[in-house]
Amino acid sequence: MTVPKPDFVSIDTPAVLVDLDIVHRNIQRFQSYADAHLLKVRPHIKTHKLPAIAAMQLAAGAVGITCQKVSEAEAMVAADSEIRDVLISYNILGSAKLARLRVLARKVRLSVVADNLVVVNGLSAAFENEPQALRVLVECNTGADRCGVASPEAAVALARQIVAAPKLVFGGLMTYPPVGGAAAVQAFMTRTKALLADAGIEVPVVSSGGSPSMMTAANAPVTTEYRPGTYVYNDRSLVAHGLCGWEDCALTVLSTVVSVPAPNRAIIDAGSKTLTSDLLGLSGYGQVLERPDIAIDQLSEEHGRLISAGPIGLSVGDKLRIVPNHACVVTNMVDAVHVLEHGELIGLWPVVARGKTA
Amino acid sequence: MTVPKPDFVSIDTPAVLVDLDIVHRNIQRFQSYADAHLLKVRPHIKTHKLPAIAAMQLAAGAVGITCQKVSEAEAMVAADSEIRDVLISYNILGSAKLARLRVLARKVRLSVVADNLVVVNGLSAAFENEPQALRVLVECNTGADRCGVASPEAAVALARQIVAAPKLVFGGLMTYPPVGGAAAVQAFMTRTKALLADAGIEVPVVSSGGSPSMMTAANAPVTTEYRPGTYVYNDRSLVAHGLCGWEDCALTVLSTVVSVPAPNRAIIDAGSKTLTSDLLGLSGYGQVLERPDIAIDQLSEEHGRLISAGPIGLSVGDKLRIVPNHACVVTNMVDAVHVLEHGELIGLWPVVARGKTA
Repeated sequence: MTVPKPDFVSIDTPAVLVDLDIVHRNIQRFQSYADAHLLKVRPHIKTHKLPAIAAMQLAAGAVGITCQKVSEAEAMVAADSEIRDVLISYNILGSAKLARLRVLARKVRLSVVADNLVVVNGLSAAFENEPQALRVLVECNTGADRCGVASPEAAVALARQIVAAPKLVFGGLMTYPPVGGAAAVQAFMTRTKALLADAGIEVPVVSSGGSPSMMTAANAPVTTEYRPGTYVYNDRSLVAHGLCGWEDCALTVLSTVVSVPAPNRAIIDAGSKTLTSDLLGLSGYGQVLERPDIAIDQLSEEHGRLISAGPIGLSVGDKLRIVPNHACVVTNMVDAVHVLEHGELIGLWPVVARGKTA
Repeated sequence: MTVPKPDFVSIDTPAVLVDLDIVHRNIQRFQSYADAHLLKVRPHIKTHKLPAIAAMQLAAGAVGITCQKVSEAEAMVAADSEIRDVLISYNILGSAKLARLRVLARKVRLSVVADNLVVVNGLSAAFENEPQALRVLVECNTGADRCGVASPEAAVALARQIVAAPKLVFGGLMTYPPVGGAAAVQAFMTRTKALLADAGIEVPVVSSGGSPSMMTAANAPVTTEYRPGTYVYNDRSLVAHGLCGWEDCALTVLSTVVSVPAPNRAIIDAGSKTLTSDLLGLSGYGQVLERPDIAIDQLSEEHGRLISAGPIGLSVGDKLRIVPNHACVVTNMVDAVHVLEHGELIGLWPVVARGKTA
């Protein structure tokens, strides 16, 4: 099938484009892997922040969604009544957030995580007068050294405190492992499950995540649920990890060449306010599609600098599509994305969960 | 005068705080320098994106404002009728932006820049049926190697084309020099002015900018106007440049410690969605106020990782204030900022020009 090129001339730049055909393919690819390995999929919506794409993930077989913050979950649930099962993979603290969490818990099957007793006690107190208990998973550090209890023994101690806390239910174990951390996940979670079994505590869910390692998720067979985020769009970092090709990148930034001030230099109208300064270990700030010879070596807020070894061969007014280093953070920079399907522009979708940090 | 600490307990985190007393002092400091050196001040509003702070800059003596994009200027002008003189320091291309530029030109004294003939011709054609001509400055590259014509001779050639173009007026010369580039600015602009004088073309404005070099702006006495941006808030990068101290940083990010998973590690709820990944040549992603022993060594979207050589001495629930590396980009991440004056919280101000990249 030949797909006609959409009319990019009509789109004011910089603009974030999302190709739904590629999104469909990306969702299906991981869902098939997960189905083959009896893994449940609970996609992290931080990558798209779009209820319509969450609906596509659920339709493909996802058991629910993952959000990072209460405000993000609120926005997603408010916009789409199809979302009925939400994990907020974050320590939730403070009266404002806890009050909103209570409201959310009345609307969906809600789970949260905790890695310390202050959070557990706060959750328990907040749900004191609620009809339903709140599901709390213990976040475990399997080597990423971000949040998470440090050892299986500490996980068991916190799980016991969740079991003992009024209005809380122990929901299982959760981790965000380092890239290639399947062996560490397997070791930590197996040991923790054994200790919990000794204590008579069942582990309903072992949840792991991260798109870079998703196609080896089954190497930690203790895992029951996986939370991929970036996979839905892919990006330059996942191409660098060998997870996909450029043709699998559903999110691109359309930009215009505004200046060609030297033979090997051009300036585009997408800078750090669109592409962001995220490097994820890469060199440069994105990949110009069909121009592997060009590097985006410097960003200001509204300028992207393109350089090439030889003549750059661009003219003022040319439009370029760029695959960003990190799709998730680009989504968060714009109020809306331009959506393509079958080569046609089909709409401008508001990014309803953009900027939700609370 | 002892200033009471505002009630940070009531603020949900992460939150961007702006201290108006410090803003006042920062504005006055550069205005005094500029007045003493007969430099006009045209602040770049990208740092605050707030009409009320633009009004403070104008009240202190600024001749107008600088914006980077048409949409940014639109938002500022729509929100504040006191803004009557706007420079958009960017090559403007494309029918959508040019149509909006025409509307803007009917409301304020408007200037734009150009560094190439495609932009000049587009501007001239767009203003063909307008009653007023548009002021166009030539952007010059004085060493930053971003936009800008490469030589005084090229600047003169483009100025001649502006003079010859229907419905355009030559507005002068503009540059965004590298840090410490005063000598290069002086050389480029003096030579260009002399060549233009030979051609019978007057240069009404020589506009330079950049907060890191602002206190040596007068070292390029050819400059008539200066466009500082970050100076209004200051940030970790300007502290590193020796331009100010921590007590001069008006913008801080209030965050909460959500986890202390190891004796020398803590996690806060401000990540790259608030602090951004901008490094500006620095190590780490911000400075925790009153804790010089702590480094913010890693950000995810919603997690900031704090590490210390010895015990970190923080507890879950502690609130910290962080000076970001780059204030301007932080402003762009949030829908509103919490404003403090005389130690009290006085309001939540919408960042009206946030996310305006078009």
